[in-house]
Amino acid sequence: MNPKRPGGVWAPAITPFRHDLSPDSERFARHARWLLANGCSGLAAFGTNSEANSLSVEERMTLLEYLAANGVPAARLMPGTGCCAFTDSVRLTAHAVGLGCAGVLMLPPFYYKGVSDEGLFRNFSEVIERVGDARMRLYLYHIPPVAQVAITIPLIERLVKRYPQTVAGLKDSSGDWNNTAAVLDAFAGSGFDVFAGSEVFLLSTMRHGGVGCISATANVNPAAIHQVFENWRGPDADRMQEKITATRAVVQRYPMIPALKAIVARGFADPEWTTVRPPLVELSAGQRESLDAELDANGFVSPR
Amino acid sequence: MNPKRPGGVWAPAITPFRHDLSPDSERFARHARWLLANGCSGLAAFGTNSEANSLSVEERMTLLEYLAANGVPAARLMPGTGCCAFTDSVRLTAHAVGLGCAGVLMLPPFYYKGVSDEGLFRNFSEVIERVGDARMRLYLYHIPPVAQVAITIPLIERLVKRYPQTVAGLKDSSGDWNNTAAVLDAFAGSGFDVFAGSEVFLLSTMRHGGVGCISATANVNPAAIHQVFENWRGPDADRMQEKITATRAVVQRYPMIPALKAIVARGFADPEWTTVRPPLVELSAGQRESLDAELDANGFVSPR
Repeated sequence: MNPKRPGGVWAPAITPFRHDLSPDSERFARHARWLLANGCSGLAAFGTNSEANSLSVEERMTLLEYLAANGVPAARLMPGTGCCAFTDSVRLTAHAVGLGCAGVLMLPPFYYKGVSDEGLFRNFSEVIERVGDARMRLYLYHIPPVAQVAITIPLIERLVKRYPQTVAGLKDSSGDWNNTAAVLDAFAGSGFDVFAGSEVFLLSTMRHGGVGCISATANVNPAAIHQVFENWRGPDADRMQEKITATRAVVQRYPMIPALKAIVARGFADPEWTTVRPPLVELSAGQRESLDAELDANGFVSPR
Repeated sequence: MNPKRPGGVWAPAITPFRHDLSPDSERFARHARWLLANGCSGLAAFGTNSEANSLSVEERMTLLEYLAANGVPAARLMPGTGCCAFTDSVRLTAHAVGLGCAGVLMLPPFYYKGVSDEGLFRNFSEVIERVGDARMRLYLYHIPPVAQVAITIPLIERLVKRYPQTVAGLKDSSGDWNNTAAVLDAFAGSGFDVFAGSEVFLLSTMRHGGVGCISATANVNPAAIHQVFENWRGPDADRMQEKITATRAVVQRYPMIPALKAIVARGFADPEWTTVRPPLVELSAGQRESLDAELDANGFVSPR
């Protein structure tokens, strides 16, 4: 891994809202700094688990500027900037690159389904050309269970060939190890960096030439996940991996984003953290109790 | 049907782009006026077939203002205003209501999948409460093949009960007549108006108490579709319906939005009309020829 390039454990930082559903910049920056101090190499702010698509373009830009101005180095930020409208993607990407962010993590346009690789190539191409900044590093965001629009290997090949300096990697949130393995087989070592989309695949990803993971649960379990990254060549790696996989399995039994927020709210004794924007719904009291009990039984150490 | 309420044939007006992909307000208004002069009762601008989600919030507002100022009465406009972020939906909806639009056609937030009716209720509720304007008329947009998030009958019931003056109807683009029939059975005559999402179901919808259709193909075949609406009680209704269904079947064999644009470009001898925004791709020359030939064989009269 090139030390100048993003790698390690990155968190798609959850976005705090006040009870009135407005984004809370101060709480956001506090959580971001806590993540960086507790094992995260960087923050993929405005990912799926950040409720990014529940925020307007302006809300995202305001939050990002606040982070960069409040103790979160831009070099440790890889904000999500992929929207349905390429004009929005251009605006968010240019803004992030202008702030000096390490990269951008870009969803494909996700409203139309069954679109062609040609159409997706044109989308990313328009964004790259219009941003027109040599500093831009684009990480493709493959998350077909949610976006329902996939980033295929032929599309990656075409983009890398056309924009070798810009197209820097991919986050694979397919949940399908076979896909991650195929992408790693095709690109590992070529300068196109692959992040697992869940820490469940962190060790396997590292062993196949990947560079780390960008995972929802890094919001609440960053230190243990970082340990696996740090020690992936060591004798204890499999045992450590088992432990973080077990924690992930507990959290995954609940709606992910409300569960992450409930865990953070409990850890920091800050109930407003449980707030989500529609169409998401916070965990019920019963769900919270049962999640806490399961995590406690698992030996999970709450954020604090 | 209440004569003051929208009904009849509404077109999700396609949005013209210049070769540089910028929206073309003037061409848009010209097409809108042509639609109103040729059988459309109104325009559901910024629908799926308008590439609305490929436009930024600002681009949509600019285009809508241009229409309203250039010969398209706001009372004949029902713009799409449903976004993934409720803050965007609030902004677009308040803008449309402020302009005096007949209604708004609102997608559910469509990024997260598998969301609950409770979460969707909260989304629509936030928009209605924050817009806070007694003039607002909300039409729900049910298009599960694309949005992948459905508007269920229990959700409609809950919304109508809580906001009886505001929640005015639904466009059913499920493509499933059984669903349209179920919604009509539940709500026809109650003041909640149902539009078929395709003219294929126009006659059936009228016979079951619906108020019309909002259909992609109304962009190119408005007069014939309007005839069915005008004569749905008449002896020739089934024959007329067969004819518009046959035309729809031809167009549906091609990617819908590029096909509509190709038909308009041909009819008005205006090739720039074929331009689509990524991730869509215009028809190939071969597809255009074959579409033209099929339409000609079908006796279709081009827009002109």
